[in-house]
Amino acid sequence: MEKLTIVKVGGGILDEPTQLDALILHFAQINGHKILVHGGGKVATQTAKRLGVETQMVDGRRLTSTEMLEVVVMVYGGLVNKRVVAKLQAKQCNAAGFTGADANIILAEKRPIKTIDYGWVGDVKEVNTEVLKGLLSQGIVPVIAPLTHDKQGNLYNTNADTMASVLATALSSLYQVRLWYCFEKPGVLANAQDDNSVIEHLSTQLYQTYQQSGVITDGMLPKLDNGFAALRQGAQEVIIGTTTALGADAFAGTRLVL
Amino acid sequence: MEKLTIVKVGGGILDEPTQLDALILHFAQINGHKILVHGGGKVATQTAKRLGVETQMVDGRRLTSTEMLEVVVMVYGGLVNKRVVAKLQAKQCNAAGFTGADANIILAEKRPIKTIDYGWVGDVKEVNTEVLKGLLSQGIVPVIAPLTHDKQGNLYNTNADTMASVLATALSSLYQVRLWYCFEKPGVLANAQDDNSVIEHLSTQLYQTYQQSGVITDGMLPKLDNGFAALRQGAQEVIIGTTTALGADAFAGTRLVL
Repeated sequence: MEKLTIVKVGGGILDEPTQLDALILHFAQINGHKILVHGGGKVATQTAKRLGVETQMVDGRRLTSTEMLEVVVMVYGGLVNKRVVAKLQAKQCNAAGFTGADANIILAEKRPIKTIDYGWVGDVKEVNTEVLKGLLSQGIVPVIAPLTHDKQGNLYNTNADTMASVLATALSSLYQVRLWYCFEKPGVLANAQDDNSVIEHLSTQLYQTYQQSGVITDGMLPKLDNGFAALRQGAQEVIIGTTTALGADAFAGTRLVL
Repeated sequence: MEKLTIVKVGGGILDEPTQLDALILHFAQINGHKILVHGGGKVATQTAKRLGVETQMVDGRRLTSTEMLEVVVMVYGGLVNKRVVAKLQAKQCNAAGFTGADANIILAEKRPIKTIDYGWVGDVKEVNTEVLKGLLSQGIVPVIAPLTHDKQGNLYNTNADTMASVLATALSSLYQVRLWYCFEKPGVLANAQDDNSVIEHLSTQLYQTYQQSGVITDGMLPKLDNGFAALRQGAQEVIIGTTTALGADAFAGTRLVL
């Protein structure tokens, strides 16, 4: 099987011009088939504010009203996505931007209402691996914004960490998949205040221990849950680290192990 | 050679929900390979206003400042493009949104400054027919927003009528191309006040006569110049008409003839 590298970058990197440039430079150099999944960052919140659209958060998750959906479609699907594409094109990387709706690559359904109605938030149902394979074999590098659709004409806001994980899982039937999560830190830290305390190998058992002891908390949990899910379901390698550690053929950071 | 239908729709149609639904319904039914090129419409101007970005026009053309470029990338490349894609997907049409930057399909350069600096406005240099052919042969229906890039990391605002024309010209080396311009009127009118006065066949000679006599003016001129350019350079059929006249296998309106 051929190799495929899926890189997920968060908003913190997209918001910082120097970090973004480092990402573009290093991502463009990765060998073989690759996909970039990006989050949104502060631009969506800032644009919403300028447009007078209120940002509502519950437990760190954004509720997506109809007005907020318009903002994230504009910002994630338009501004952020096309900026990244144009910058990668300038580095001879044949990037093309997609949302889950484009070529129906990621089908979702509205998140069911239990205690909270998240609004236009979608949970992934299906990844269209055949279309992605066709694009990759044409030499296209998909740059995927965190939006999905339901094939009934509706768009949804969808978590980028989850999208990267489900893409890795689905595509592991066709490729040897490496999933690299890029964020602001050099890896998962044993001491949040010390960037030199990177946990080099994180097993599911160690992950449980660190959760119980409070070493790993909050923001890292969904990323790690998504990473472990991909690893259990077929991804060959899942690593969490910082942009500048992205190399043509390797990535340094915290490696997840089962 | 296989057939390819390129449909261009303007902002007036995109802004009107009933017109947009008619477009989606009829476009989805067109047989064979097809591409949709869309303009922007009032949403860009409205969004710019809400964001406090001033719209500057010279001779009916929008000047594109850095702030305005951000708005059109958000609105054309994000909101309008993805809405159309999601709606087409709901009609079993495998639409995927692109700007000229995506997969480098349309390369442009900044419009040279003569008397006016249009800002981030790009003139098309090259169409990447091979990538488009690859997408079409995969069954993908490109939905193209009026934005281009220069392969140096810059995005440009580009006239959608021109983009449709240059796509038709370039792709006529690979396909039998039909170019259909959809707008609010049933065709080019001999009497602007009378929708029943459609000019069924418009030759270059008749076009000159109508221009001189003032029957055809202003807004129609760039569309017709673009249409004639495509016809002279290889398109098999160029027709200008209204959305509801779009059929699975034909389009009614004003047919251009050389």
